[in-house]
Amino acid sequence: MTVPAAGLPARVRVHEVGARDGLQNEKAVVPTEVKAEFVHRLAAAGLTTVEATSFVHPKWVPQLADAEQLFPLLGDLEGVRLPVLVPNERGLDRAMALGADRVAVFASATESFAKANLNRTVDEALAMFAPVVSRAKGRDMHVRGYLSMCFGDPWEGPVEVGRVLRVCRALLDLGCDELSLGDTIGVATPGHVTALLTALTTAGVAVDRIGVHFHDTYGQALANTLAALQHGVTTVDASAGGLGGCPYAKSATGNLATEDLVWMLHGLGIETGVDLGRLSATSAWMADRLGRPSPSRTVRALTHQEQ
Amino acid sequence: MTVPAAGLPARVRVHEVGARDGLQNEKAVVPTEVKAEFVHRLAAAGLTTVEATSFVHPKWVPQLADAEQLFPLLGDLEGVRLPVLVPNERGLDRAMALGADRVAVFASATESFAKANLNRTVDEALAMFAPVVSRAKGRDMHVRGYLSMCFGDPWEGPVEVGRVLRVCRALLDLGCDELSLGDTIGVATPGHVTALLTALTTAGVAVDRIGVHFHDTYGQALANTLAALQHGVTTVDASAGGLGGCPYAKSATGNLATEDLVWMLHGLGIETGVDLGRLSATSAWMADRLGRPSPSRTVRALTHQEQ
Repeated sequence: MTVPAAGLPARVRVHEVGARDGLQNEKAVVPTEVKAEFVHRLAAAGLTTVEATSFVHPKWVPQLADAEQLFPLLGDLEGVRLPVLVPNERGLDRAMALGADRVAVFASATESFAKANLNRTVDEALAMFAPVVSRAKGRDMHVRGYLSMCFGDPWEGPVEVGRVLRVCRALLDLGCDELSLGDTIGVATPGHVTALLTALTTAGVAVDRIGVHFHDTYGQALANTLAALQHGVTTVDASAGGLGGCPYAKSATGNLATEDLVWMLHGLGIETGVDLGRLSATSAWMADRLGRPSPSRTVRALTHQEQ
Repeated sequence: MTVPAAGLPARVRVHEVGARDGLQNEKAVVPTEVKAEFVHRLAAAGLTTVEATSFVHPKWVPQLADAEQLFPLLGDLEGVRLPVLVPNERGLDRAMALGADRVAVFASATESFAKANLNRTVDEALAMFAPVVSRAKGRDMHVRGYLSMCFGDPWEGPVEVGRVLRVCRALLDLGCDELSLGDTIGVATPGHVTALLTALTTAGVAVDRIGVHFHDTYGQALANTLAALQHGVTTVDASAGGLGGCPYAKSATGNLATEDLVWMLHGLGIETGVDLGRLSATSAWMADRLGRPSPSRTVRALTHQEQ
């Protein structure tokens, strides 16, 4: 049943991260042709932004080592945005060589995670991204800036809004078109979300440049999303079937499942363009490829998937 | 990290249903002494309302056939509310004989579910409850009125707010002190929750007589809870560890896990009196008794429970 709520956006763009953030965090390495079929199926289900892969060194993310082979297989997808992650200038070169027109860089709000993930300080990482963003913008590419650990950090605990604001500003100053605020360890609750968004928009950041990226590690992702929608956010990251968020593995990151998100959005009368049945069937199909049930409750309910 | 949000209540009473609604919907029949230990542990974790069991005919709910044996084992729990479900006058007699001072009746907003669950029309069921509520109130007992299928029904689809409002009024007119609005099949989204609560409070029902009972079948329970809190609701039903909501069984009802709820409430600075670590340990212990992992994401994250 569709029952709108006051003050919410009429339309939300789902930024689908399953093929990149999802598969990157799954144990199994998925064959290139399965990845290509996955992206095609996601597009056929109505997703208009499908993050396709990452041009990071294969040593760090062997799951996505086939970026050069995969990306050309997606060339027939017209009208679908296919951003790719680029960690540095070498990654940007590889993405450019294949004709990618949307890239994303991956920063951290905390020193501990910047050190753990990039072996740099926060500012050293920003300095590394500067030429990446500048060269990408010089080619009129769209640049997204991911920001990890915006709410809590496994080593440092709670993260102050002011620290996040500083790195957001730096990413925008570099030239990023859009931010994606990540609750990488899933600890945020709705008041914290509202506080961060209020700080950003009060500082003059347009809400249509802010995306949110919540994790369901503690089951909070959808409540946090509701708080973000109430603040006017219209870009929400999610992972088809909750990929990368398998609750059965120690590496569980708990990505918000796109299906759970879309169920809420459609129930609220918010347009997404997504065909939920088709999307769930795609996630059930991918779960079969991975040999385990989808962690998405909506996928399980709609496809009667059982263990 | 605690970051309050504007306009939310300072304190919420968690109505813990794991021992009744939870165990009733689990395949395994739990030994009476384990149930008693479970209720004691829940109380020790700070839960002040623990629905203990059901005085329904054992033929219908064999999992709770030991109500007569269990209830006396809880007599030492001072200051803890121990409501019990009574389906009819016979059930009320049994509960009264054991000294219960809080009972609950179980109505349906839809004809299909009234027929399926009680083999009566909605109005016939209300007529059956009339002497139950009247006799209970005559003894100064507290009476809760559960109302199933307040948002959607598996046979009838979406449920109109007006129909729910009518049965709510009838339950209050019978003498119920409190309502529990159930999204039994978990289909509701936040706008629908707000619409129903608005209709009830506009009709003069005090918000402190309204409890909400959401299911996580489609992952919506916590977002719906946030909408209810924003409307001023201060009584929220939940099931420790998501008991009864095992996502691995066809009978999955997907009860909201108390731990996921408490994580959000505490993050919002809302007092519950619950010790989340102690509660999660209790749910992990019960999951061991049941031989399967807890479906609560918070329990899994806090206790590193894996499959």
